[in-house]
Amino acid sequence: MSLFSFLLGEKKKTASVAKERLQIILAHERGGRSKADYLPALQRELIAVISKYVSINPDDIKVNLERQEDLEVLEVKIELPDPGR
Amino acid sequence: MSLFSFLLGEKKKTASVAKERLQIILAHERGGRSKADYLPALQRELIAVISKYVSINPDDIKVNLERQEDLEVLEVKIELPDPGR
Repeated sequence: MSLFSFLLGEKKKTASVAKERLQIILAHERGGRSKADYLPALQRELIAVISKYVSINPDDIKVNLERQEDLEVLEVKIELPDPGR
Repeated sequence: MSLFSFLLGEKKKTASVAKERLQIILAHERGGRSKADYLPALQRELIAVISKYVSINPDDIKVNLERQEDLEVLEVKIELPDPGR
């Protein structure tokens, strides 16, 4: 299954109401000795960049960080205001 | 299946050599009438932000954009230089 079909499937499960949503996923795979842990700082900057394109209400941002083995996945879900409002 | 277990499974399939990799996924779900198409511009800015944290060789960046129904997914895969090199 491709990533696209995975996300399409997820969308169909949750999308009861046609809302505009933006999902940012950062997956960091540390090779061997890398100690770099920049995802939290990167997350703040990415949200700052995105808010140049769309107006974001901080209450509409959900952040999820998971770590296992050498994989770290940061997921940011943003529900965007209805353009009609 | 959660997104994390999906990405962990993907990693196990591809990770023959323990390399440091960063994957950025932007999934934009357009609700109703939104015509906004900012993913390409957003992608350039996100890579600029990331290169403040890690040195990125443009040849090591793979970009994939898929659109279906009202879902648009931009995937950026970056292989990072080995910290030991």
